[in-house]
Amino acid sequence: MPKPIHVTVWGQNVHERKNAIVAQIYPDGKHACIAQGLAEDRSLAVRTATLQEPQHGLTKSVLAETDVLIWWGHAAHGKVRDAVVEQMIRRVWDGMGLIALHSAHYSKIFKRLMGTSCSLMWREAGERLWVCNPGHRIARGINRCFEIENTEMYGEPFAIPTPDEIVFLSWGGEVFRSGCTWTRGNGRIFYFRPGHETYPIHFHPVVRQVLRNAVHWAAPNGQPWVDSCPNVPINKAHETLIAKGPRLHKEGEAGLR
Amino acid sequence: MPKPIHVTVWGQNVHERKNAIVAQIYPDGKHACIAQGLAEDRSLAVRTATLQEPQHGLTKSVLAETDVLIWWGHAAHGKVRDAVVEQMIRRVWDGMGLIALHSAHYSKIFKRLMGTSCSLMWREAGERLWVCNPGHRIARGINRCFEIENTEMYGEPFAIPTPDEIVFLSWGGEVFRSGCTWTRGNGRIFYFRPGHETYPIHFHPVVRQVLRNAVHWAAPNGQPWVDSCPNVPINKAHETLIAKGPRLHKEGEAGLR
Amino acid sequence: MPKPIHVTVWGQNVHERKNAIVAQIYPDGKHACIAQGLAEDRSLAVRTATLQEPQHGLTKSVLAETDVLIWWGHAAHGKVRDAVVEQMIRRVWDGMGLIALHSAHYSKIFKRLMGTSCSLMWREAGERLWVCNPGHRIARGINRCFEIENTEMYGEPFAIPTPDEIVFLSWGGEVFRSGCTWTRGNGRIFYFRPGHETYPIHFHPVVRQVLRNAVHWAAPNGQPWVDSCPNVPINKAHETLIAKGPRLHKEGEAGLR
Amino acid sequence: MPKPIHVTVWGQNVHERKNAIVAQIYPDGKHACIAQGLAEDRSLAVRTATLQEPQHGLTKSVLAETDVLIWWGHAAHGKVRDAVVEQMIRRVWDGMGLIALHSAHYSKIFKRLMGTSCSLMWREAGERLWVCNPGHRIARGINRCFEIENTEMYGEPFAIPTPDEIVFLSWGGEVFRSGCTWTRGNGRIFYFRPGHETYPIHFHPVVRQVLRNAVHWAAPNGQPWVDSCPNVPINKAHETLIAKGPRLHKEGEAGLR
Repeated sequence: MPKPIHVTVWGQNVHERKNAIVAQIYPDGKHACIAQGLAEDRSLAVRTATLQEPQHGLTKSVLAETDVLIWWGHAAHGKVRDAVVEQMIRRVWDGMGLIALHSAHYSKIFKRLMGTSCSLMWREAGERLWVCNPGHRIARGINRCFEIENTEMYGEPFAIPTPDEIVFLSWGGEVFRSGCTWTRGNGRIFYFRPGHETYPIHFHPVVRQVLRNAVHWAAPNGQPWVDSCPNVPINKAHETLIAKGPRLHKEGEAGLR
Repeated sequence: MPKPIHVTVWGQNVHERKNAIVAQIYPDGKHACIAQGLAEDRSLAVRTATLQEPQHGLTKSVLAETDVLIWWGHAAHGKVRDAVVEQMIRRVWDGMGLIALHSAHYSKIFKRLMGTSCSLMWREAGERLWVCNPGHRIARGINRCFEIENTEMYGEPFAIPTPDEIVFLSWGGEVFRSGCTWTRGNGRIFYFRPGHETYPIHFHPVVRQVLRNAVHWAAPNGQPWVDSCPNVPINKAHETLIAKGPRLHKEGEAGLR
Repeated sequence: MPKPIHVTVWGQNVHERKNAIVAQIYPDGKHACIAQGLAEDRSLAVRTATLQEPQHGLTKSVLAETDVLIWWGHAAHGKVRDAVVEQMIRRVWDGMGLIALHSAHYSKIFKRLMGTSCSLMWREAGERLWVCNPGHRIARGINRCFEIENTEMYGEPFAIPTPDEIVFLSWGGEVFRSGCTWTRGNGRIFYFRPGHETYPIHFHPVVRQVLRNAVHWAAPNGQPWVDSCPNVPINKAHETLIAKGPRLHKEGEAGLR
Repeated sequence: MPKPIHVTVWGQNVHERKNAIVAQIYPDGKHACIAQGLAEDRSLAVRTATLQEPQHGLTKSVLAETDVLIWWGHAAHGKVRDAVVEQMIRRVWDGMGLIALHSAHYSKIFKRLMGTSCSLMWREAGERLWVCNPGHRIARGINRCFEIENTEMYGEPFAIPTPDEIVFLSWGGEVFRSGCTWTRGNGRIFYFRPGHETYPIHFHPVVRQVLRNAVHWAAPNGQPWVDSCPNVPINKAHETLIAKGPRLHKEGEAGLR
């Protein structure tokens, strides 16, 4: 039996406890519902973490064991501590996959990895998603389009760097790049638009299928790589080099940062 | 006569005042030397700014008037205030070009726009650069390769997102992607490897030519775009939409961030 | 006064002469109407060429003088001679811009430059286009969306390599990447979806504005580069190299192709 | 036990039979040596095919069963039949991986998928390759650099579209992007520079390791997708559409090509 893919589903868990509509749909929290959908796939080992836990449930050891991190947040983006964000980002560079859902377009981790504002336009209305590449791993088993009757749609302009791939486009009165991929370091990143908390979107069987597919796509396939910025002195070069001119640094010293 | 391109050359201006070798080469500061090289092109209107000035010389009005920002820093990356970095980044998204030189690979602004660690390896030794695309605007008038006898070279792995284009590769005992371009928002970004402060690199005629070329390449050609994240209510949609399900937001309200 | 940008508008000119509907809308040919829309911009020098002319009107000298080529064809893609296609492609690599309109997704030149099948789905129905990046040169002066009442829309999957940029997305019952850019060699390529011949689309003021913008965006800004595949012998290398092992080729000989 | 990855190694098999040096190094043909190196990995099922076989050994059924095609050719690029090239390209779009070795930069299949001239410079001299991303699947188990003492090196400019990823750079008196990836349709493409036929490069343990890694990276992970260009009539659209204006096509007819 192959090793399972270890998934951590992170939920902000705020609206679920404060807003009656959200609490009714997701009584155990949105993260629990997402995790349940993933667990339908036996090759995934799923755990959850929330904002309220120490270190938001994302300790160094949890992150080290996580192959793919799923991120959902909305009202409390600003409450996620910067130190935890830095640790998550390092793990993405190492190879951990990241799946950002819906309002996570404005999360600290997503914005930091994109380097752009990640703005868009929005409206509480239904939408339909189309598959741009039926052969893509993330689209496996998905029909050429599917509807989400009740949702908060998003529209362009979506201020992101050009995606590596566009897997879904949507229309809900306006058009939007609803399923996009990028790579940062060795981590694969998938942004998936559906996921507003006032609707039962994470019970939708196609949305669940997309997330299971995306976990398989985002799982690391390389080897961990510990990033550094070494000085390699002249006498360690493979070809013969001759030092010329004055120098700021001593042989093999750590550089300035 | 066409409008000039407004360039601001930012220099950290620290080693020039503390290190005797650097002070001797760049008595007026490295930024002044870079500006001098640019001013050989009459279509450029060049000013300078340094770390020590109020707001590092990069007030809102200076940034608003800047078409292309050239950034050189090394020892004092951490002293650049985050608020100024945010304002620079907004201007890049608007369309301001950014040219990051040498050790600026570890500057706050470059790392924030890349979303990666931007690490590399380094050694104080000479290097040679080759042109990967002789037809590129940044390579105009440059021979197929040129040498920088005294320099601090850099080597791979360079932890950057895949560049849009690679204009130069170099070898100085190791290989490196020494001239790379990206776009973030509407801002064009060029990273150019040469520029260590203990050598007279910014007097090198080919380095000066590359920077003049790069300014022309990076100058904005679109229109300013003020980013926002608007709600567009259902009755403002162009096709007829029907509201369904419960709602979190009121018509036209500002979203959560 | 700056030098004008030289544009050649190529039209297939078949349906205009065979189909009564098309002939009535474009009595002088579709190419003439497109050229007329471009000529509203005094900085463009516009000519036309058609399938029926010798070498399809695209002689070596016409191509050499062309900064941006606009291509519209539909029924007669297969009649465009391969030798002419090869010459056009060489010019794109040199830096000539290419703007491919509507059914040109299946033209020889577009498919050859993309390396993919360029398939899509289609329907004769209206559509609306949205701007994905209001700051882009090609979107200058265009509102955030515009409608084409009568058109043949296209839908995904559109089998193209990931575009460098997406400027427009559309919806006409299905979604589509309606304005995309790529670079091949030094040539900038823009695919723009509108342009079905049975409707007066090339009289539409926004479509005309997009094409004028696109010409400015696609115009070459580098220097011509004559492609080759030279052998550079060991004694011409800048660093000292030592020949080792047996050899297939003589010094400086032309390689195998 | 997981399903094996089916690899077909294609060799031109010309110089092996005509040139005494090549015949001595690769008495069974270069393809056989490459296949032998791959077969060290038990999870790969390897076969070979050559120019001289009917349909160059690449019948429809062989291609259908091939997950990853490895291509080596040099003197006889022009002898590969266009019809076979078209069938290979279709399979790449379907998801078949393609690994192009050394002089395959000028093969019909590689040039067709790239859409550029694929030119470069060359010299019979040794070279060293550096890993640009130690965490990449293709670099698994490879040290940060490795030397090929006897080889034909290549140098920039390499006229390719910007790669999705650069895995290796090299220096052999000049620099070169020696390990690059792209995607066309759903097929993953890897170009790997080493492989000149007058040297025992395909016995080199690191080269063999890179190829085994690359096969794992290039193996399809999506689902087959049969490309088409369907008309979907108005009454099959999901939202209500109204036909307007005259029409060129009948409902559901096949379009023009």
